[in-house]
Amino acid sequence: MTAEGPTACLLSTGEEVLRGEIFDTNNHFLARTLGERGFQVQMMLTAGDRREDLAFAMRTALARADYVFMSGGLGPTDDDLTAAVAAEVAGVGLRFDAPSWAAICALFRRNNLEPGPNNRKQALFPEGATVLPNALGTAPGFSLALASGGVRKTLVALPGPPRELQPMLLTYLDATAPNPEAPDANLFIRFLGQGESHLSERLEPWSKIWGPVSFRQAFPEIEVKLYRPDPACAAELCRFADRELADCVLDFAPLSTLELFAEFMRERGQTLALAESCTGGLAAKLITDAAGASAYFLGSVVSYENAVKERLLGVDPAALTGQGAVSEAVALQMAIGARERLGADLALSFTGVAGPGGGTPEKPVGTVWMARADADGAAARLLQLSQGRDRIRQAAVSHGLRWLMEAWLAERRRHSLQVA
Amino acid sequence: MTAEGPTACLLSTGEEVLRGEIFDTNNHFLARTLGERGFQVQMMLTAGDRREDLAFAMRTALARADYVFMSGGLGPTDDDLTAAVAAEVAGVGLRFDAPSWAAICALFRRNNLEPGPNNRKQALFPEGATVLPNALGTAPGFSLALASGGVRKTLVALPGPPRELQPMLLTYLDATAPNPEAPDANLFIRFLGQGESHLSERLEPWSKIWGPVSFRQAFPEIEVKLYRPDPACAAELCRFADRELADCVLDFAPLSTLELFAEFMRERGQTLALAESCTGGLAAKLITDAAGASAYFLGSVVSYENAVKERLLGVDPAALTGQGAVSEAVALQMAIGARERLGADLALSFTGVAGPGGGTPEKPVGTVWMARADADGAAARLLQLSQGRDRIRQAAVSHGLRWLMEAWLAERRRHSLQVA
Repeated sequence: MTAEGPTACLLSTGEEVLRGEIFDTNNHFLARTLGERGFQVQMMLTAGDRREDLAFAMRTALARADYVFMSGGLGPTDDDLTAAVAAEVAGVGLRFDAPSWAAICALFRRNNLEPGPNNRKQALFPEGATVLPNALGTAPGFSLALASGGVRKTLVALPGPPRELQPMLLTYLDATAPNPEAPDANLFIRFLGQGESHLSERLEPWSKIWGPVSFRQAFPEIEVKLYRPDPACAAELCRFADRELADCVLDFAPLSTLELFAEFMRERGQTLALAESCTGGLAAKLITDAAGASAYFLGSVVSYENAVKERLLGVDPAALTGQGAVSEAVALQMAIGARERLGADLALSFTGVAGPGGGTPEKPVGTVWMARADADGAAARLLQLSQGRDRIRQAAVSHGLRWLMEAWLAERRRHSLQVA
Repeated sequence: MTAEGPTACLLSTGEEVLRGEIFDTNNHFLARTLGERGFQVQMMLTAGDRREDLAFAMRTALARADYVFMSGGLGPTDDDLTAAVAAEVAGVGLRFDAPSWAAICALFRRNNLEPGPNNRKQALFPEGATVLPNALGTAPGFSLALASGGVRKTLVALPGPPRELQPMLLTYLDATAPNPEAPDANLFIRFLGQGESHLSERLEPWSKIWGPVSFRQAFPEIEVKLYRPDPACAAELCRFADRELADCVLDFAPLSTLELFAEFMRERGQTLALAESCTGGLAAKLITDAAGASAYFLGSVVSYENAVKERLLGVDPAALTGQGAVSEAVALQMAIGARERLGADLALSFTGVAGPGGGTPEKPVGTVWMARADADGAAARLLQLSQGRDRIRQAAVSHGLRWLMEAWLAERRRHSLQVA
């Protein structure tokens, strides 16, 4: 891994975040954007509205990184302290900026309002700061060069409202950071069907040579990440995954099973029907989360009750009483019935025990039968899943969709290995 | 509000948050829960996977508060450093905890897996720590008393996955905080169908007398919160909501539409069928998220394509071509068809334009027709929703379920007002 870009700490302010009333979307946006521009974000902090806390957080952040990006605290009220505390930390005074005050007054007048005396405070900046104009609100930002421990640091103060902060940050970065990092310099490989500890063990022969990787859980998938790797190292990891982890690797791009499946169906130009019991509509829901699913998705019969399996899918009552609703026979009949009755090229069915109740020694919680049907016939597969109702249902859907595109995924990986 | 409780800093770990890949939901949950239990959250920090950064963040947090609540870094891989760094900061060694190791092994075996050698690391804790068992994952947490600047501090380390962290935190707080605020001393009123700013305006006649309330977004609902209110003030807010906000108030308990609906159906003892077009299985998915839905839920026909509406629900092709798939006539036929074909007491249908494409001047994105059918006949209702595909689908489901139980909800509120 390389470590070339400048380091950054992020500091957001606001009691609402500390009380858990709102999410801190600013630090998230800052982290993502700065990462894409080559900054290395070291730490995030959130401080409340008390002056001493803010000063402490600012000093802490300045001690750890080349840049500190702050959000919030630029408003007109008493608890907006960013400029005053930044001046204190930098050891300078505050100066009144006439052009900023004119811009604030103009914004008020455009909205047929008059600025109040409090707003004058928003035109005060630490001496030596560069004002960052705000086209969308009354709070200009600023950047300030200062020394911390004898080292030159930059403090960038941005307004709290995301719609004001975001364009101001981009303008600042465009003006100051000329070389945004190409996002495709990173490698993200998705796996499905292995927990983190097992995947980490199975990667050991590779990581003993090339070093550790990072993992990101995106249940039911796990992403293995290499940031700006050496090209040889990246290519070797792809080859290793394709050779040794073919049972669980999805793709060499950071695409989820669902994103891959949409691409698969679009390429294939066929239609899909579902028959769901234990997944209870989840498979259809996940597929239709993406706009454009109507290009291939016809519908789903959520047959939660057995009588619905008989009536709407033509499942044989004898199979339901004989083998039971969670059985290979019923899964097959559900898939065949859905394909015929919805008039689809391809059908997929799920019937299982999602729990927490309903398990038996023969069919414990997590037992899921799935079946596929197409013009060539039908086939069934058994899954033994775990980790509770939600995860059992979610993993069943992902395993089912991967199953339908298994050959296509392998071909896709082969193709990227040849290109690389 | 009083300011007596212990102070807390929150420290989450993980490169993904610093890179802006995922949201830090743990610090948010911790802030909200600890605030409700009387802690004063002073600062939030997020550090990455580097040992020195984590140690710095831990020391910084310990210097600022009585308690530090950490999340993440308890996994089996090399970048999971919480226990080791906590031991270093506390100046103690690590000890192997045999009962934790036995629990980890048992969890693996329950899922028909074997623990790997890496997992053994998850049974190592700083000397003197109290282990916090994890029923849902392999990472036990721990609490550790230590001194920082001569003052006694408590470090509480929790696992990163929210579904493991949340119950562990609550168990810890129940056991250690001797006077958790009695949850029923608070008042949480749920509303559906009003944004925060409108709800706040409509509450003004009440809040001018009684003071401001807090809001919590739980889309599509909003919760209005009063912490430990005066009983007269709480009763007056309930009466005001029932009288002035009857169109959007749900209940005087912090229950979601879905939780209320499950209770409604159980009380009623009838069966339900769905016919879904734009919601694409979401309604069935949300209902079957809860175990026990099979007591009343028969199934759903997800008729994404028009031909499926005809074949499986008996919708008249003339209505589809004449009025269009998004119309009162089609919604009614879908509900009637689902009720008959699935053999249910009650049926609910959704057909609409979830977007982002597909809108027209007559039927813009967010237009959703829903219909209900029961033994007494059928009725339809039009919704005009907004805020994008996901929220349109989610709000449609909640509005539909509330519609089915409208009279029951009003009766339930009347009853609580009499009791209070």
